[in-house]
Amino acid sequence: MNTIPAFLGVDWGTSNLRVYLVSQRGQVIEQTQSAKGILHCSQGTFGDTLTQLAGTWLTRWPQLPVYMAGMIGSKQGWRETSYLPCPIHIDDIASQLVPLSFDGTRKCWIVPGLSCTTPDGTPDVMRGEETQLIGAIHRQRTGSQLYCLPGTHAKWVHVKDGVIQHFATYMTGELFDILQHHGLLSVWMQDIPQEDQQEWFLKGVELANKQTGLLHHLFGVRSLSLEGTLPPKHQRSYLSGLLIGHELRAALQHIPQDTPVTLIGATSLTKQYERACSHLQRQLHVLSGERMVLDGLAQLHASAARKV
Amino acid sequence: MNTIPAFLGVDWGTSNLRVYLVSQRGQVIEQTQSAKGILHCSQGTFGDTLTQLAGTWLTRWPQLPVYMAGMIGSKQGWRETSYLPCPIHIDDIASQLVPLSFDGTRKCWIVPGLSCTTPDGTPDVMRGEETQLIGAIHRQRTGSQLYCLPGTHAKWVHVKDGVIQHFATYMTGELFDILQHHGLLSVWMQDIPQEDQQEWFLKGVELANKQTGLLHHLFGVRSLSLEGTLPPKHQRSYLSGLLIGHELRAALQHIPQDTPVTLIGATSLTKQYERACSHLQRQLHVLSGERMVLDGLAQLHASAARKV
Repeated sequence: MNTIPAFLGVDWGTSNLRVYLVSQRGQVIEQTQSAKGILHCSQGTFGDTLTQLAGTWLTRWPQLPVYMAGMIGSKQGWRETSYLPCPIHIDDIASQLVPLSFDGTRKCWIVPGLSCTTPDGTPDVMRGEETQLIGAIHRQRTGSQLYCLPGTHAKWVHVKDGVIQHFATYMTGELFDILQHHGLLSVWMQDIPQEDQQEWFLKGVELANKQTGLLHHLFGVRSLSLEGTLPPKHQRSYLSGLLIGHELRAALQHIPQDTPVTLIGATSLTKQYERACSHLQRQLHVLSGERMVLDGLAQLHASAARKV
Repeated sequence: MNTIPAFLGVDWGTSNLRVYLVSQRGQVIEQTQSAKGILHCSQGTFGDTLTQLAGTWLTRWPQLPVYMAGMIGSKQGWRETSYLPCPIHIDDIASQLVPLSFDGTRKCWIVPGLSCTTPDGTPDVMRGEETQLIGAIHRQRTGSQLYCLPGTHAKWVHVKDGVIQHFATYMTGELFDILQHHGLLSVWMQDIPQEDQQEWFLKGVELANKQTGLLHHLFGVRSLSLEGTLPPKHQRSYLSGLLIGHELRAALQHIPQDTPVTLIGATSLTKQYERACSHLQRQLHVLSGERMVLDGLAQLHASAARKV
């Protein structure tokens, strides 16, 4: 492995901060992380927080450029960056990195987020996922692809020949979290690992595929439980299946059955989507979310380095 | 007005207790209410609570029968009554009232709730709405009707020739309440009366009619707001329109455009549904929820009196 660092890659989200010392080829030499996500930093302390976590590297390599992705570019972050409108080619994102004054003459950039108008006419936004997309799209710069990035706010992204055409966000993860902790369904729900609860997860996916609507299906968690059919320990899996099922149904409704979906995320997140897609006989590929952030940052660095 | 009381009608729900002194023809002679819903009564105190609120009438008319509808028949209520399975004729509900031992030899009954299997194969239940339905269906005992009872858990009910065929519950009101107070959407939402916010309410109804799915539409509340298009004071109305729109879309999907919907509820609840139906060019009639409870109880009394 090449152990000469080429840049510092920073994935700075709402809850966590991850810093990577990365080689020219995108290999991680060293890495460090903390719970100092932007929600846990106050305005004016972002530079200090980064120095605290990555100070050794910053001191050792005074010229090492820094690339930052994620909510660090939001209003609550270090510096608010404008969303770049879609359609946009991934190379055009590289040319619009937002420079930040930080550590003397060190080159430091924030990757801007993206905006679009979804096919139903409403606006949509992403911040952070664009960097993973750059990494993923760079692997296959021609043809049409459909990417799914599961999460609190899951993104479905349409790409053609390296151009991000449009995308749509689904509040799946957030609604799952809210319904587990508030309201009628939360009362009997047990917080049990979902690993062995696949039967009820898939029943949820199956029902979501019928047209009777999410608002009705949610009440079914209660009525199946009242009837004694759905035991409390399976309710969480069933709810997860219902919500992911509804997301897939809406996102895939006009997509031919043989079009593959590329999932990008952490294993814990993508596993349920894999099971649901497989149940619906949808082809899919899975890419590591962390790997894609690093590949994306490496692409952005290579592009910036070419310009210098 | 006939001022000779025929029975005491009790509408005992989760949050409230309403007692009516009612004539043979279902006219209210006097009425009283308290916040002593079943959630605010402990086991063993239901009799005392009723005596406290309606003691004067109970003492004055020791033989007056009492009919109780609502959550009072649930596990958390005075006595748990089994759900009667649908399809069921409204006259068959009258013959299956559950007697309760209360005040010496006084006749006292709880109206049982109903259960069914919805067309998507899941079970469903109601408790309280069946009494309003008895009142409404009695007005038109032949032909096919579609009833909507808006609320925390809205019910859509299919009826043919006096027989309640099946019904489906939508968690519309509950989800509206939860999303106003928890999670991303609650952060900027302002609690402003919705009376003058019809424009955004109807935009929500309109969008819900498109096929991109509720999980995506919910995120639109945030992205429209980020973009500056949707001001904070209109977010609540827009969310309400989205949710009611999704309920209507699912409930009406196989119902011909010229089939009228009969709404049963309080004016504050039915008004938004009226606006949404009217926007979707759906015909509807509105019946007062309180009137239907009393009509239903009067029907049950007439039927019980015939048997004695």
